[in-house]
Amino acid sequence: MNQTNDLSKRRTIRRYTDQPISADTLNAIIEDASHAPTTGNMQLYSVVVTRDPEMKKKLAPAHFGQPQVEGCDVLLTVCADYNRFVKWCEQRQAKPGYDNLQSLLTATLDATIFAQQIVTAAEQRGIGTCYLGTTTYNAPDIAKALELPKRVVPIATLSLGYPADEGQDCGRLPIEAVMHVEKYKDYTPEDIDRLYAEKEARDDSHQFVTENGKATLAQVFTDVRYTRSANEAFSEVLRDFLKEQWPFE
Amino acid sequence: MNQTNDLSKRRTIRRYTDQPISADTLNAIIEDASHAPTTGNMQLYSVVVTRDPEMKKKLAPAHFGQPQVEGCDVLLTVCADYNRFVKWCEQRQAKPGYDNLQSLLTATLDATIFAQQIVTAAEQRGIGTCYLGTTTYNAPDIAKALELPKRVVPIATLSLGYPADEGQDCGRLPIEAVMHVEKYKDYTPEDIDRLYAEKEARDDSHQFVTENGKATLAQVFTDVRYTRSANEAFSEVLRDFLKEQWPFE
Repeated sequence: MNQTNDLSKRRTIRRYTDQPISADTLNAIIEDASHAPTTGNMQLYSVVVTRDPEMKKKLAPAHFGQPQVEGCDVLLTVCADYNRFVKWCEQRQAKPGYDNLQSLLTATLDATIFAQQIVTAAEQRGIGTCYLGTTTYNAPDIAKALELPKRVVPIATLSLGYPADEGQDCGRLPIEAVMHVEKYKDYTPEDIDRLYAEKEARDDSHQFVTENGKATLAQVFTDVRYTRSANEAFSEVLRDFLKEQWPFE
Repeated sequence: MNQTNDLSKRRTIRRYTDQPISADTLNAIIEDASHAPTTGNMQLYSVVVTRDPEMKKKLAPAHFGQPQVEGCDVLLTVCADYNRFVKWCEQRQAKPGYDNLQSLLTATLDATIFAQQIVTAAEQRGIGTCYLGTTTYNAPDIAKALELPKRVVPIATLSLGYPADEGQDCGRLPIEAVMHVEKYKDYTPEDIDRLYAEKEARDDSHQFVTENGKATLAQVFTDVRYTRSANEAFSEVLRDFLKEQWPFE
């Protein structure tokens, strides 16, 4: 992969060479990312670095065995973290009031911004990355494996490594689809047809539909990839986990 | 501001010159950012562009009158958005199942990653940015002003403009504070003292403490800036808003 700063050319990389990321390079990536903006400069996040093959093996089932967990050089679990900040408050005669929805959301935003800054800092160094969207599904298992204390919630996992391929250009909706001027202009049926036309016409979309025996691309999402039953079941898991990990109400 | 790609040198910019951001430049920033990674390439976000002074005036109270709302060239409200995707599904004989916690979180992550990529794309062009952390506090007012439909939740607001100053270097915790190796190593009292020492020793921290008549820097956060009562009140507002805007359970 070229070390490009052109964000419109970036691609997700799922396959990596054997070349390790040096400790200095990894530290520089984290250092860069730590300059990401955060709410009130509170830095309400942590990252757990996984390099040990045994730990990767332990985390793999929580990510449904996605090959890049064991196939990457470095796995990073980025967490929303009020634990450190609350400990600081308590040690400084300050009474923290962060066991509530807004604070959980604040830390989630801090952590996500930090994660994306890790992606950019890695890409600037020719290192490929991939988000594993499974982190919030199996948050309890990940928290157990990484020994996360209360007020620390895993939000995003990234695999990192030197690219073994160039990744796929999987296309995007035209910016007209995501950009509204002054007020949100809701989509007419004609808008939807026009905005999704290019995506639906792609070869890989047709292949997706055929492979899954579906009638439309949207059905691949609703019936196979992101189903109501899975979303609802994992919402329950997350809700129960949060009750333990970040109790509020 | 120099157009630097060094992420460790980036700073938040709150004051802007009169130079407008051209429509082409703004489109290029959004286009760049739209190549950010998203869950299953679903792009579960939207951005509402505010340039009209009347609209800025309308939004200002929701951001507690922070001066950059009216003082910026472009205000961007980034939203978690399942509305467009659900409309597409319904138009393609697919039954969406996204009225649940995991889906709301998924869209929140997509939107936040997109917002941060806007920041980087703007900074690459010498444009300064500032997050307004007030967006989720007054989400109902913002949703009303921007006419956001159901399943669209404002997550982050950014002010953009050409920098009128260089911004402040407000420092960061050492990376040791945010990075854990293989397992989360919880902080001892000595760790907390060491990791926060530099932050507490800063001139601006001392000034903060004195100005607010507090004994410690942590108390400025707990008693003035991010209080329990405000967090709890705005958590209730957000919870009620979500019940209308993204009903589930």
